[in-house]
Amino acid sequence: MRGRSLILAVLLLAGTLPARAPEGTAPPAGAPAIMPWPQSLEAKPGVHRLAGNLTFSLDACRDARVAAAANRLLEMVRRRTGFPPQGTSPRQASLILRCGGDGGRVQTPGTDESYLLEISPGSILLEAPSPVGVLRGLQTLPQLIAPDGESYCLPCLRIEDRPRFRWRGLHIDVARHWEPVDVILRNLDAMAAVKMNVFHWHLSDDQGFRVESHRFPRLHEIGGEGKYYTQEEVRTVVAHARDRGIRVVPEFEMPGHATAWLAAYPELAAAPGPYRVESSWGVFDPSMDPSREEVYEHLDLFIAEMAPLFPDEYFHIGGDEVNGKQWNANPRIREFKAKSGMRGNRELQAYFTRRLEAILARHGKRMVGWDEIVHPSLPTTVTVQTWRMPPRFEDNLKLGYPGILSRGYYLDHMRPASWHYGIDPGAGLTPDAAGRILGGEACMWAEFVDEEIIESRIWPRAAAVAERLWSPAGLTDVADMYRRLDAVDVELERLGVRHRSAFPRLLGGLLPAGDPAPVARLAAILRPRGLAERQRARKYTRETPLRRLVDILPPESAEARRFDLLVDRALGAPSPADRAGIRESLERWRLGAVNARPALQSSFLLAETVPVAESAAAACALGLEALDHLEAATAPPAAWLEKASGVLERARSFPEIEIAVEPAIQKLVRAVHSRFSRQGETP
Amino acid sequence: MRGRSLILAVLLLAGTLPARAPEGTAPPAGAPAIMPWPQSLEAKPGVHRLAGNLTFSLDACRDARVAAAANRLLEMVRRRTGFPPQGTSPRQASLILRCGGDGGRVQTPGTDESYLLEISPGSILLEAPSPVGVLRGLQTLPQLIAPDGESYCLPCLRIEDRPRFRWRGLHIDVARHWEPVDVILRNLDAMAAVKMNVFHWHLSDDQGFRVESHRFPRLHEIGGEGKYYTQEEVRTVVAHARDRGIRVVPEFEMPGHATAWLAAYPELAAAPGPYRVESSWGVFDPSMDPSREEVYEHLDLFIAEMAPLFPDEYFHIGGDEVNGKQWNANPRIREFKAKSGMRGNRELQAYFTRRLEAILARHGKRMVGWDEIVHPSLPTTVTVQTWRMPPRFEDNLKLGYPGILSRGYYLDHMRPASWHYGIDPGAGLTPDAAGRILGGEACMWAEFVDEEIIESRIWPRAAAVAERLWSPAGLTDVADMYRRLDAVDVELERLGVRHRSAFPRLLGGLLPAGDPAPVARLAAILRPRGLAERQRARKYTRETPLRRLVDILPPESAEARRFDLLVDRALGAPSPADRAGIRESLERWRLGAVNARPALQSSFLLAETVPVAESAAAACALGLEALDHLEAATAPPAAWLEKASGVLERARSFPEIEIAVEPAIQKLVRAVHSRFSRQGETP
Repeated sequence: MRGRSLILAVLLLAGTLPARAPEGTAPPAGAPAIMPWPQSLEAKPGVHRLAGNLTFSLDACRDARVAAAANRLLEMVRRRTGFPPQGTSPRQASLILRCGGDGGRVQTPGTDESYLLEISPGSILLEAPSPVGVLRGLQTLPQLIAPDGESYCLPCLRIEDRPRFRWRGLHIDVARHWEPVDVILRNLDAMAAVKMNVFHWHLSDDQGFRVESHRFPRLHEIGGEGKYYTQEEVRTVVAHARDRGIRVVPEFEMPGHATAWLAAYPELAAAPGPYRVESSWGVFDPSMDPSREEVYEHLDLFIAEMAPLFPDEYFHIGGDEVNGKQWNANPRIREFKAKSGMRGNRELQAYFTRRLEAILARHGKRMVGWDEIVHPSLPTTVTVQTWRMPPRFEDNLKLGYPGILSRGYYLDHMRPASWHYGIDPGAGLTPDAAGRILGGEACMWAEFVDEEIIESRIWPRAAAVAERLWSPAGLTDVADMYRRLDAVDVELERLGVRHRSAFPRLLGGLLPAGDPAPVARLAAILRPRGLAERQRARKYTRETPLRRLVDILPPESAEARRFDLLVDRALGAPSPADRAGIRESLERWRLGAVNARPALQSSFLLAETVPVAESAAAACALGLEALDHLEAATAPPAAWLEKASGVLERARSFPEIEIAVEPAIQKLVRAVHSRFSRQGETP
Repeated sequence: MRGRSLILAVLLLAGTLPARAPEGTAPPAGAPAIMPWPQSLEAKPGVHRLAGNLTFSLDACRDARVAAAANRLLEMVRRRTGFPPQGTSPRQASLILRCGGDGGRVQTPGTDESYLLEISPGSILLEAPSPVGVLRGLQTLPQLIAPDGESYCLPCLRIEDRPRFRWRGLHIDVARHWEPVDVILRNLDAMAAVKMNVFHWHLSDDQGFRVESHRFPRLHEIGGEGKYYTQEEVRTVVAHARDRGIRVVPEFEMPGHATAWLAAYPELAAAPGPYRVESSWGVFDPSMDPSREEVYEHLDLFIAEMAPLFPDEYFHIGGDEVNGKQWNANPRIREFKAKSGMRGNRELQAYFTRRLEAILARHGKRMVGWDEIVHPSLPTTVTVQTWRMPPRFEDNLKLGYPGILSRGYYLDHMRPASWHYGIDPGAGLTPDAAGRILGGEACMWAEFVDEEIIESRIWPRAAAVAERLWSPAGLTDVADMYRRLDAVDVELERLGVRHRSAFPRLLGGLLPAGDPAPVARLAAILRPRGLAERQRARKYTRETPLRRLVDILPPESAEARRFDLLVDRALGAPSPADRAGIRESLERWRLGAVNARPALQSSFLLAETVPVAESAAAACALGLEALDHLEAATAPPAAWLEKASGVLERARSFPEIEIAVEPAIQKLVRAVHSRFSRQGETP
């Protein structure tokens, strides 16, 4: 860890060093901040300087998406650099785009995404066997543009790149909280920037049905409660995605997680209605009745309507968390099971899934489902998305199912990017099983995000998942991942994603008036806890306004992360500068936490945070004391360690908010402990 | 100043105190953060609590704009509070809207904007004689919503409000730098929030012609160089503005500032072409030829096309800064002048203006022009917008012209909001002259702003002008203005204006990669200098990328402003807490300036700022020394004051960037000087 943080420090200062071919677990020192990191990068001498806007030429690129993407790149560069538009003096193109094929009407997981990028002082060549490959390379380019001492420039290099996995998705739940189209479009832009290629659109659940259906209008009217995408909007989203080389896989949850569906059409349910669209979270009883032909007739008509709207070959039917209570309670279903020789509800669900699979096949679709659908009777043409505990993923692959991994990629759990980065779909698998991995998906479940918050809870962390799914498995260096993630973070906001600006924008609304800066300073060392902890802490429903501090806090504290590296380095090889840095940070945070108090007390949304601020101030004061002892090399008073442990325990005790600098302060306290207890042992 | 800063501190902590009727120069302590402050506000006991979304009912409101604005308010409240949509349980309306009249098709300066707002615990009544009055009141409401210790609420009160002036404009130059439609729409939203009612759209100048003309397509093709508003886009802007009670007054500059026009139609010029659209700034020679009938025929046809596109009664023809060189050089024009008995170019321009006025009148338009158009022969039906030195404004009013003041409201001069706030159009005028004031306009000239920057250079400062033009003349307290401006600042970003997020978003692009925080910390105590200083500092043209630190810095430093108040207070009545606050700030900034250095050095866009950072660090260190002397009551060494003066002079010496905390540090140094020189005098 210590070695790594030194590398980080060097990299931060040495952005202009030439990159060398990657070896080991990290890109070489001074490598450009590309994310996901390419399969192969050969640094060359020199740089390509931008003197004005880029100009491009197309060579054999028949797909209109390429020119559109190149124009977007130019616009992005113009906005970043402030270069004036080219006006009436076109020059020789500096960017040559060359590709084969027309890309086809509908992208598939088999679409070639590889590209070759060669940057020399005089020109940039981007070449790919397919248009989508060019789109990918066009996303690498802006990550290479940076100012050096002289101008904006790109390092000369040769990149040969292709994804490790061909399914790199982002799943967004729009049922539990509604997300307007503009939010979806911005997420697609962000996905494209990090080369994700599947937008998994979770369109129905207990809490809402979000697509307009002409055939079954009660679905969006009753099930959607006015919050749904019109078919025109769906086409807009699909076209926007296609333009960026992103497939759109719709998900309609059945037979369970279907309360909104059944509120609209109670006759499909396994128990008599009426049903109301659900407003709380969890697993609910209502489910479709697999024993009735009318259900399949309805689904056939529904899928017939949706199939052309979502041109992708894959169609997600959910299939998770059916509790079977309604099935058990219904005598007719019990009889159906007995007559068909089914031993339990797993077999009944498998029957439902097989029937559904046949309907989908008739409409030209392949089925995807969550891993509960797996059953010996289910054909292995079905793709399984695993969200449950290991070894499910491996098991399902071994059974022959193509697999998508989401376990470990749940963004609503509020884990740091490094944690998700450590989850490798291929880890420990036999080559046979590994060969059936399609890829993975980061999942944004929407219990705790609304339209104002969701971007800040997806980005930039999803980029770490994107890299895990694209880049070589051996690339595991966390410090370098964060170096590049920080750059992507800034890049995404420049692209129009609102993840970084969300917190300051929302914080103002939590205060009566005046300066939000003191609270912002405190918030910089806090992070929200995840779904499970928050569900335990209090009762949340769809009616709960998500406007407390915990709701709007960014998932990670960059200040805490940097402080942790600093403490590691200082404890390993003490230097006066590092200790001064630690002292300065702790004093600043302590003061910030104290100064935030009046603002916190002024608002019912923030008053609950007063004890957190007090605890943070105490923890920072403790860290300063620990530093005093370490610097003066004086043993603390006997009671100090006990007091310290109480302060730290208190700092960890808040059910919904984490004081993100507590672990690093704990390291300082432990260092005092180990230094002076050892001294005690060897007098 | 000291008394005021104490009031400020109290207000910041006491947002929930009931307001009382305003008297004197500031709203009473604890008053809500309404901006512009209303004509009359009577506080009542109690609060109106928001338990869920607002619901509204319409009483005699036939104008569709009222319902649209009320729905926007509800959506805004929903986004701010996170309240769930009302869904299927509508309650009794809590907000009753009542108005007379249908508002007419085209708003005029005579449109009644008054409204009455009564908030009681059980209901909110908003009543106005015209729909536009209701729109104004609907903008007051969100400024009253704030969290207290219990819930979101509004204070109970009665507001009777109407504007002091009926023309409260924002002028945006879209010629020197192009601004896309979305930027214009966001500015209209911001204008509406602070009750501005005229968008003055500066659509043509030497550097561009920005409206599509079917009759004269070379205007937008050649003159606009591809950057122009289609007529459809113009209609979108006009409708968006009308919806918010904002008139759109187009400006087409003639006979001077017309190079782009003449590049398209050189035959209109007073000297043979060809002309090229201008790319630098200043006053240029090309102008229309007032002696040729073809010019008036062209203008007649042009205005015939534009008149219905811009339904407002007023039409701005520019008229400023004609240098007359082409007129003097053209023998035919000289002969025309001699034949007509004109003594000089002022008379020639007056002849042109009169002809134009007749054309406009024929198309149902009233003329507005900059104050150079004034001439004894010009009828007083023409409205004059004054931008030149006093006493022009008074003179023009005395001559009988309705007047719009812009002198003192030029936002590109980078003056603080307090400076603009101090400019009163009515100051020192006779009642007769004052009676002819229509109002004023804040002007955003676009030499130094492009689409990424412009919002941060307009907002929130324009809100101070908006208040000066709406609120009672006696309201002059700067500290309270800033208290409310801070709230508006936050509110506008919540509305979607991108002024606050612009700086962090752009700063990332100026750095090679990594953490922009150290530079941001330095930038927080810097501000950009204005147009004149920057023009002197170096040569700027339209081709100069606006992506150096000076380009993206916000116009005011809130940290410096607060620090200045703190220093004033501490020097008046020394308190340990204030001194500790001063010390903490200075130490933080000093360290920030030192730590920013590596990042500054890494980029050609920031390297020029290294000396600024060094000077800022030295100034902060000096401030700390001054504080030491004041605290210890020890006289400084003999050479200290001389050194201090050198450090401060250096801090003031940067041609484009101001170290915004320098004046306050200077106060500390002066305090040392006066303390110890006095002691020296009375030993």
